[in-house]
Amino acid sequence: MTHSTPHVAVIGAGISGLTTGKMLGDYGVEYDCFESSDRIGGNWAFGNPNGHSSAYRSLHIDTSKERLSFKDFPMPASYPDFPHHSHIKRYLDSYAEAFGLLERIHFRNGVEHAERLPGGGWELRTQDGELCRYDALVVANGHHWDPRFPDFPGEFTGESIHSHHYVDPSHPLDLHDKRILVVGIGNSAADVVSELSQRSHRNTVVMSTRSGAWVVPKYMFGMPGDRLARTIPQIPGRFQRALVRKLPILISGKPEHYGLPRPNHNFLEAHPTMSSELLLRLGSGDATVKPNVERLDGRTVHFVDGTSADFDAIVYATGYNISFPFFDPEFLSAPDNRLSLYKRILRPDLDDLAFVGFAQALPTLFPFVECQARLVAAYFAGTYRPPAPAEMERVIVEEERRYTGHFADRPRHTQQVDYFVYEHDMRTKELAAGLDRVRREGPVRLAGRASALQDA
Amino acid sequence: MTHSTPHVAVIGAGISGLTTGKMLGDYGVEYDCFESSDRIGGNWAFGNPNGHSSAYRSLHIDTSKERLSFKDFPMPASYPDFPHHSHIKRYLDSYAEAFGLLERIHFRNGVEHAERLPGGGWELRTQDGELCRYDALVVANGHHWDPRFPDFPGEFTGESIHSHHYVDPSHPLDLHDKRILVVGIGNSAADVVSELSQRSHRNTVVMSTRSGAWVVPKYMFGMPGDRLARTIPQIPGRFQRALVRKLPILISGKPEHYGLPRPNHNFLEAHPTMSSELLLRLGSGDATVKPNVERLDGRTVHFVDGTSADFDAIVYATGYNISFPFFDPEFLSAPDNRLSLYKRILRPDLDDLAFVGFAQALPTLFPFVECQARLVAAYFAGTYRPPAPAEMERVIVEEERRYTGHFADRPRHTQQVDYFVYEHDMRTKELAAGLDRVRREGPVRLAGRASALQDA
Repeated sequence: MTHSTPHVAVIGAGISGLTTGKMLGDYGVEYDCFESSDRIGGNWAFGNPNGHSSAYRSLHIDTSKERLSFKDFPMPASYPDFPHHSHIKRYLDSYAEAFGLLERIHFRNGVEHAERLPGGGWELRTQDGELCRYDALVVANGHHWDPRFPDFPGEFTGESIHSHHYVDPSHPLDLHDKRILVVGIGNSAADVVSELSQRSHRNTVVMSTRSGAWVVPKYMFGMPGDRLARTIPQIPGRFQRALVRKLPILISGKPEHYGLPRPNHNFLEAHPTMSSELLLRLGSGDATVKPNVERLDGRTVHFVDGTSADFDAIVYATGYNISFPFFDPEFLSAPDNRLSLYKRILRPDLDDLAFVGFAQALPTLFPFVECQARLVAAYFAGTYRPPAPAEMERVIVEEERRYTGHFADRPRHTQQVDYFVYEHDMRTKELAAGLDRVRREGPVRLAGRASALQDA
Repeated sequence: MTHSTPHVAVIGAGISGLTTGKMLGDYGVEYDCFESSDRIGGNWAFGNPNGHSSAYRSLHIDTSKERLSFKDFPMPASYPDFPHHSHIKRYLDSYAEAFGLLERIHFRNGVEHAERLPGGGWELRTQDGELCRYDALVVANGHHWDPRFPDFPGEFTGESIHSHHYVDPSHPLDLHDKRILVVGIGNSAADVVSELSQRSHRNTVVMSTRSGAWVVPKYMFGMPGDRLARTIPQIPGRFQRALVRKLPILISGKPEHYGLPRPNHNFLEAHPTMSSELLLRLGSGDATVKPNVERLDGRTVHFVDGTSADFDAIVYATGYNISFPFFDPEFLSAPDNRLSLYKRILRPDLDDLAFVGFAQALPTLFPFVECQARLVAAYFAGTYRPPAPAEMERVIVEEERRYTGHFADRPRHTQQVDYFVYEHDMRTKELAAGLDRVRREGPVRLAGRASALQDA
């Protein structure tokens, strides 16, 4: 009997769900994609009615178009170096249209509950209340939509929002003529500080950071920085990191000069902050820096250095939780954003479940999810077979050490992946090894696939 | 008979008038300063009621505080690298207070007419209608307050303002949700484009430039760029310019990459544009570039490349005229901003007239005017004597070639001076040579001084 492919459900039609759909289609795997919104794009659909977009009006991606482009669908040459969110949305629309993805997406019908059946396979309950069964499930619901808040003691009686809900200086809060504290020093924090501290808004803006970050401009030496600062998979990462460690100081000077703390980690040991504006604002006195918050008391914020100041508003640019609201928490969750997966895709204990897009791939996410989607499609098409569960477990531990061992131990870094290393490993080794395993052992026969056939 | 100092009138209490007053005081020269406004600071008094400030709300000086500081009055160490206009105003207030300058300033009593008397000396008519006579006159009324407009054929029926009147995206025009053309590529143009093209304002912003410009960031290699890019007076300028010619491309890449024309001059052959934001906005697609305007037609602007586009507003960031509204034009004017002065201070044919601050000193203006004011004070105190008129004429021609011979022939570059070269020449040669001339020939006896003494 030839290998007949399973029927796959994909949760989400953002970049991860779209590339998964495209690859499943390429490999001839039947699938349905469930999307809670009325549109594709997820995070990149500014103002997405499902509330899952964190894009603010001014958001430009921090990855250059060359690095960002899917491998099999080039970005238009007319795009600027650093596309605006509206460019990305149009690009994803073209992608979906070019590969006929829309007809497989069930809009406004997100998965509300996903339950693994006792014998394998999945029963999904979707927004329209219907129950449906699939042989396999791909989780592609993203990890930049569930705001993470710090746990500061006390209470702040001014207005506060998470950067997820920040749109522009007038929405949803009127942030003009205000004393504003922005907590965090990631890309969102840098963008929000840069925007709100524009003198035309007449705000007083303070940035609070616990750990500091290396801030590097989007352009370096007249090139998008990510064209310059890339790793070469064939050279050990530790060696390369030693080489580039001095780069941010060469490019931008010492963080202390701008009032920023010296980061508690070396450059590239944690996600650097890409901003051409933040250091300019700090060096122009338009925004200032405080250390971590100690406690909140009415309008007053006390910092760990013993200073305090009054604020009208706090913007928490403090990152996101990985959340799977459709899974029972006792079945599967990602406490502290920890999610152990083989190649960040597969669980050793569940052969009919795959994850796409759950990584902080540096310097680029789009071709990373495309690369993951290819493996997922090959897997369900029967041309890729992962190693035995024990070997998967061993590799997970080894690779977590390789990718994130050098990162500071923080929720935002649990998912750090070097795209170049990952893609090189996937292209030159893992897909071929998986095909060899198929040739030796045959494709994986999903437990759920068997039961589904029995049901039929 | 000992040299008794003349009674001097100073027109204006901006940086040039203030430093002149300070130096005259140091040298024991009697003076009165006439200021049309109710406050000091001129251009740096944001919202100056006399209309002579070109500062917009977001204006930060493009010179670092170390370079900007007067030599004999350091800027506060607490100031940011690139001070805001409000910092500069406070600094000038402290300067005026520290040296007791305010008591010599006649506020709200600017000079409306200055007439040279037949025998020398000056009769001034001030705002309060009174006539008063002085032995000598220092013109320090600035050259960044009389907007220069280009002479485009046709008529534009949308709104238009000069950057002199631009305050912020809401004042005086409501520049939100608008199609805006900014004409020019100097610092003001770069700042206005950077501000109005912020996505939060929802504008479509186009920049039109005739000649292009080299755009360099305020910070280079983590240092204020002007600390790095300075000339060394002992090395010929031509040699140094050849060395640094490649700097902007090394730092920022080719202008063409951002849609800008290749400038029609080499780097430092014309005033470079200092902006850390302009290239980012262009590279992010938030603003785009057009060549020079060919003609205006209603809401439509036609460009010299044959393209056209409709706009709601035009901001002319096209520089300033040198204007002396208190002189009869047939007596003295500066057509096309040409003003031939010995050391950019003295006229060979008028011994009782001095100019301070009429130069585009690069990279810094404040210590330049301070340096000029010192010569002016030494002159009127009788410790500096310029060479004979014929020699002054010769030097004027020679130095115009030296300072601006390599500059493109344009009104904005008629006044270009290399501060380091100028200051070095003044400190190590000119002041000493002038003192030698005093020792040999005695101080200059002003024609007006003699007649004033006769009148007494």
